Amino acid sequence: MTVNLKNFLNPKIKMSKMGEFQELMPINGLEVSSVSADLYGDGRDDLTLFYFGEGANFAAIYTSSKVTSACINWNLKIKRHFIRALMVNTKNANTYTGVKGAQGLKEIAVALAKALTIKLSQSPKGASEIIKITDLLFSSTGVIGEDFPHTKIKSTIPELVKKLKKEQNKYVWFKTASAIMTTDTKPKLAYEECKIGSKLVKISAVAKGSGMIAPNMATMLAFIFTDANIPSVFLKSMLKKVSLTTFNSITVDGDTSTNDMVGIFATGKANNAKIYNILDPKLVDFEKALYRLSLNLAKQIVVDGEGAKKFITVNVVGAKSISMAKNIAFSIANSPLVKTAIAGEDPNWGRIVMAIGKTQEKIILNKMQIKIGNYLVAEQSKQAKDYNEDDLKEYMKWGAINIEVNLNIGHGSFTVYTCDFTKEYIDINADYRN
Amino acid sequence: MTVNLKNFLNPKIKMSKMGEFQELMPINGLEVSSVSADLYGDGRDDLTLFYFGEGANFAAIYTSSKVTSACINWNLKIKRHFIRALMVNTKNANTYTGVKGAQGLKEIAVALAKALTIKLSQSPKGASEIIKITDLLFSSTGVIGEDFPHTKIKSTIPELVKKLKKEQNKYVWFKTASAIMTTDTKPKLAYEECKIGSKLVKISAVAKGSGMIAPNMATMLAFIFTDANIPSVFLKSMLKKVSLTTFNSITVDGDTSTNDMVGIFATGKANNAKIYNILDPKLVDFEKALYRLSLNLAKQIVVDGEGAKKFITVNVVGAKSISMAKNIAFSIANSPLVKTAIAGEDPNWGRIVMAIGKTQEKIILNKMQIKIGNYLVAEQSKQAKDYNEDDLKEYMKWGAINIEVNLNIGHGSFTVYTCDFTKEYIDINADYRN
Repeated sequence: MTVNLKNFLNPKIKMSKMGEFQELMPINGLEVSSVSADLYGDGRDDLTLFYFGEGANFAAIYTSSKVTSACINWNLKIKRHFIRALMVNTKNANTYTGVKGAQGLKEIAVALAKALTIKLSQSPKGASEIIKITDLLFSSTGVIGEDFPHTKIKSTIPELVKKLKKEQNKYVWFKTASAIMTTDTKPKLAYEECKIGSKLVKISAVAKGSGMIAPNMATMLAFIFTDANIPSVFLKSMLKKVSLTTFNSITVDGDTSTNDMVGIFATGKANNAKIYNILDPKLVDFEKALYRLSLNLAKQIVVDGEGAKKFITVNVVGAKSISMAKNIAFSIANSPLVKTAIAGEDPNWGRIVMAIGKTQEKIILNKMQIKIGNYLVAEQSKQAKDYNEDDLKEYMKWGAINIEVNLNIGHGSFTVYTCDFTKEYIDINADYRN
Repeated sequence: MTVNLKNFLNPKIKMSKMGEFQELMPINGLEVSSVSADLYGDGRDDLTLFYFGEGANFAAIYTSSKVTSACINWNLKIKRHFIRALMVNTKNANTYTGVKGAQGLKEIAVALAKALTIKLSQSPKGASEIIKITDLLFSSTGVIGEDFPHTKIKSTIPELVKKLKKEQNKYVWFKTASAIMTTDTKPKLAYEECKIGSKLVKISAVAKGSGMIAPNMATMLAFIFTDANIPSVFLKSMLKKVSLTTFNSITVDGDTSTNDMVGIFATGKANNAKIYNILDPKLVDFEKALYRLSLNLAKQIVVDGEGAKKFITVNVVGAKSISMAKNIAFSIANSPLVKTAIAGEDPNWGRIVMAIGKTQEKIILNKMQIKIGNYLVAEQSKQAKDYNEDDLKEYMKWGAINIEVNLNIGHGSFTVYTCDFTKEYIDINADYRN
């Protein structure tokens, strides 16, 4: 299989950098294509299709925002758990686009269902099958409130379907991950494999998002594909569980997109033994692999946070409950004052104390301990005895900063991943639409 | 009365700028002094005393943070509503300073009570009176977690008491407002007068804070002094009510200080008719004056927000409840994406939609209308028909930006004041402690 390297990618992405990324394997039962519908006006890929010739089980989780894109509304109406295709466009979020945005999406769905039915009719197996619009899912990311360019997208569907590739080699995955980017500076890819019973199962995934920070053009999307044979209901429960400590444990600035979507699609082509029970021990390895893959993607999103220079891990332990630990961890991770101090390489731990205090959680001040890296900086309501500002200043120069808060009042813990807050964030977001 | 202009002020403040500020009147029954306890090492004023020779009724509201300064803990223990003095220091927050910080404060209180008792003994009226430590309030603002410099402060008390001035002319008020500053670039002063019955009543106030944003050195403090004769319990209820829509309606970055304090002190020297009832119509004008004064100070704090270039008013109307309107207004005002867009003069109203959506409030999308200035930008879940990007871009160049969201589902409304989010904010906060 050859891929045309010209007209390939987002112009920000250099092919020469491809070696720095993980190599993804093809997923049997999946076909992929990305083309340009000219939404950006510079020829970059902006439209991507994931097609499952014989369908796929799936599960998805969506943004918690009360304002949601027409594509999210569409997906939420699909009550079945077996689909044929997912189409993703960038540049336009199709959010706050009124009745017109929803109608435009429906027109696209009709055209796509028709094009895929024709494709199917040319394969020996699917000669008499018809693909319905309810077999299709959609995902959009881009500016909120601008007219949805449904005509441009619709007219590109024949080309998009024609270019579907069965064997996704590393180039195809790299092209796909680049096509769904907006303000991202790097494509995000992850691969895992594991066994279900005696069968080797593959999981390939792409994601986008400069954190959850720039909902106009930096929605978090993650699409996970596997050849495992797992019922949708179990995919759903595993995805929900794994997301809690991966995709839902990252923050760049606390803002939430209207278009967030994380989906998992299973073609079943690995022909592993059937799973009848979520507690089936055969699923243990798969869930672990899904967790590693999701954490990997989530961290890639944070590292690529707009303007980010440092990767920050905030770990809260010894809380009365997980929710208390989570609340405190997010308060620290979202505090502009903590994030600017880290950008300035200043071990200003008083700001961590401030961020803990403002949560209103019932902590016991005298019991709390705060560490930056391996350095204990505060305990018993005051600066730690062995506090050494010089050591801390050295540590703050690192690219990855760990903050640990031990509340010493229980066993709840939670970890949040975030990045620092730099002048470049302001630059990117102040000038974004220009 | 003369004031020594050398060694007068915070070095950032130029006397020549004094004409730009409101002129405050002296409050009968109040004496004021500010000196340097050398906490900064550059001779600037850092210690301020407000003394009431015959005492004052008072009421105060404090930070909602669960981590509070030793001074806040001290004040909260004072159950009486009649005090003799308030001492304010800058540079050190006396927060997270352990038992030592609390003991240092007590030593200061003992020394101050003694010095004021001696002063009192020299006046004919108070010859036999003794000032107790429970007659004193304290306020600190500065770095969290550093040792509280109680020895330096204690040794400066004799000078501080000696320099108390009965007649606070405009220079004294300007010096006082400058002495309580930290990262502020301007002192904050406000004056109002009104009648209670037939008596003219004066209200002079000083405040500090670059928003509630930089708890290490930018706590919000506001001290309001009046010669009105009003019982503490009514002062409290008016202060609470007025603060809701003034001091508690501003935000710079959503961070909350450990040391916030707003206090009102009434000497009673205006000899107005006694007030026996909070509903007494004689109080109406006073409450209005207190509201104007508080809003004035609150706006001064936002305008001086760290790095702020624009003043933003977010007005949410037509909500099901005040709490719904407040929640949505703060979500917009605290969103880094909204604030960076405004810094970039970009009428990117999609981000306002995002900030509304993430609140989880049950709005009806089709009913919501969004205005920027007088321009309707969105309604019926889409961009407004007459939307004109050029008009909006012109408007965004203004120094004061109004955002109005009409939810059209009820009668609850709330207004929040904030500022934009610029690169200078990052500069100030990344390098703060250096």
